[in-house]
Amino acid sequence: MRVTFLGTAAAGGVPLFGCDCLACKRATGDDAYRREPCSALIESGDTRILIDAGLMDLHRRFNPGDLDAILLTHFHPDHVQGLLHIRWGRGERIPVFIPPDEEGFSDLFKHPGLLDFRPQKAFAGFRIGPLTITPVPLAHSKPTFGYHFQDLDHARFSYLTDTCGLPPETSEFLRQQPPHGLALDCTFPPRPEPQGHNDWPLALEIIADISPSRAWLTHIRHDLDEWLIREQPALPDSVEIARDNGTSVLAGEPHGQV
Amino acid sequence: MRVTFLGTAAAGGVPLFGCDCLACKRATGDDAYRREPCSALIESGDTRILIDAGLMDLHRRFNPGDLDAILLTHFHPDHVQGLLHIRWGRGERIPVFIPPDEEGFSDLFKHPGLLDFRPQKAFAGFRIGPLTITPVPLAHSKPTFGYHFQDLDHARFSYLTDTCGLPPETSEFLRQQPPHGLALDCTFPPRPEPQGHNDWPLALEIIADISPSRAWLTHIRHDLDEWLIREQPALPDSVEIARDNGTSVLAGEPHGQV
Ligand SMILES: [Mn+2]
Ligand SMILES: [Mn+2]
Ligand SMILES: [Mn+2]
Ligand SMILES: [Mn+2]
Ligand SMILES: [Zn+2]
Ligand SMILES: [Zn+2]
Repeated sequence: MRVTFLGTAAAGGVPLFGCDCLACKRATGDDAYRREPCSALIESGDTRILIDAGLMDLHRRFNPGDLDAILLTHFHPDHVQGLLHIRWGRGERIPVFIPPDEEGFSDLFKHPGLLDFRPQKAFAGFRIGPLTITPVPLAHSKPTFGYHFQDLDHARFSYLTDTCGLPPETSEFLRQQPPHGLALDCTFPPRPEPQGHNDWPLALEIIADISPSRAWLTHIRHDLDEWLIREQPALPDSVEIARDNGTSVLAGEPHGQV
Repeated sequence: MRVTFLGTAAAGGVPLFGCDCLACKRATGDDAYRREPCSALIESGDTRILIDAGLMDLHRRFNPGDLDAILLTHFHPDHVQGLLHIRWGRGERIPVFIPPDEEGFSDLFKHPGLLDFRPQKAFAGFRIGPLTITPVPLAHSKPTFGYHFQDLDHARFSYLTDTCGLPPETSEFLRQQPPHGLALDCTFPPRPEPQGHNDWPLALEIIADISPSRAWLTHIRHDLDEWLIREQPALPDSVEIARDNGTSVLAGEPHGQV
C-alpha cells in the first residue's frame, strides 16, 4: 500500500493568506514548506483512492477514471471544497464514501453531478479493489469518520482527521489491530484545552496508546509550524511531521503469517 | 476605468472536467481558450474591486490589501467558492458587498474571518474610491445583483451575471444611462426556453435594448463555445465574446459635457 500526503494543512493552509509569521514566510519562500488542504492518496496495485477533497485544484490534478473512489472524512469546507467544481464534469460517476450527515455541504447533495454519494456505517467494512476499508468514528464538530485500510498483504493504515481525542470504541478497534501507519490530526501547538482538533501533546498521547509502527502528524496549522521552528521539540523515532507530497510504502506481514 | 475579465465561464469551467467536446479539447491544448469561474477586476486610479470570488486560486492571485472591496453578485458556489479559503487569512478585513440573502453560502456567515459582509439595497448607490456603484436586481434562482459603475470621467460599466432576461426596473435604469461597456450573462447556445441564464438570442436582445457602446458576452458554458466553433454566428460590431484575462479601458465624456 502506498500513501501520499497531497495536503497536510488545517483550514487556511500554510502560508495563510496575509500572514507573515515565521512558518508562513518560510512557505512563501520555498514551496517545499507549503501545506495544501489535508488529503491523501492511497494506492494498491491499480487501485487509487483519494481521502478528502479540499484541494482547490482537484480538477487539474486528476482526470475522470483516475480515482476508484473518494472517501470523505466529513463535510467541512476544507475537506470537500474541491468537489464544487469537478461535480459538473463528464464521464463515469465517482463513488464518494461519506459519514452519515444530512446537511452535507452547500448544494452538493442537491446537485451531485458526477458524484455518487454513499453514506457508510461506523465499523462496517467495505472493499475497494484489494483494500478492505473500515470507517471509524472520530470526535469532531460534525459527523466524522476516520478510515482504516487493510491490504491483501495485511498492511494496515489508519487515517484519522479531523478529531480531538478518539471515541473509546475507535481506540479499542485500533489497539486490537495496531496499524503499520497512522496519520493523525495534530492541528495546534500545546493548548490549555484542545477543542475540535488534537494539539501536540494529545496527538502524541493517542499515538502512544495505539502503538502504530509509524505515525505522521497532519492537518497542521501555521502556528504549529511556527512553534515547531521555535521549539524544535523532540519526537519519538517512529513519529514524523507529514509533508505535502511525501510518499511512504507500507508493507504488512507475508501471507499466512498474521 | 479598466475592466479585466479574470474568468468568463459558467459553473464547471472550460475545459469541463472529463469532457472531450471540441471546445474542451481546444482549451486543454491551449490555455488561451480556458475559462475560469466568472469574475472581473475593475480598476480606477488606485482603486481595485473584484466582482465575484469563484476563482479557486484567489489566495494566490491576490495579497491582502490588493483589493479595496469584493462585490458578490450572488451566493452560488461558482461565484463565491474562493472565499472559503481566504477568509481564514490575516490582515485588514475586506469589505464584501452582497445582495440580501439570509442563507449565504456554506458557513461563510458563521465564520466570516477576514470578510466584512455588507448587504446592499437595489438601486442604492455607494461609493468606493472614484467609483459610484449601483446594485441592480437580476432574474436568477437566488437573490442576485448586477453592478453598475460610474467613474469620475462618467465612464459607465455594467456587469450583469447571473441572469435570465432582466427585471423591467433594471432594463429601465440601464436604458436611461446606457453604459459604455456591458458584460452580460450568455451561458447557453440557443435553447427553446432559456432558464436561469440567458441563451445567445436572449443576450443579444438585451444588448439591443440597452444599447451600450460595447458589450461582452460572459459566463460561457463549454457547449456555447462548441456551438460558436461549429456555427461561427455573426455578431454586431460592438459585441464580443469575453476571454479570460482580456482587458479593456472604458472612457466617458470629458467633464462638463454629460
Ligand atoms: Mn479540517
Ligand atoms: Mn473539520
Ligand atoms: Mn454562475
Ligand atoms: Mn448562479
Ligand atoms: Zn502564519
Ligand atoms: Zn466540453
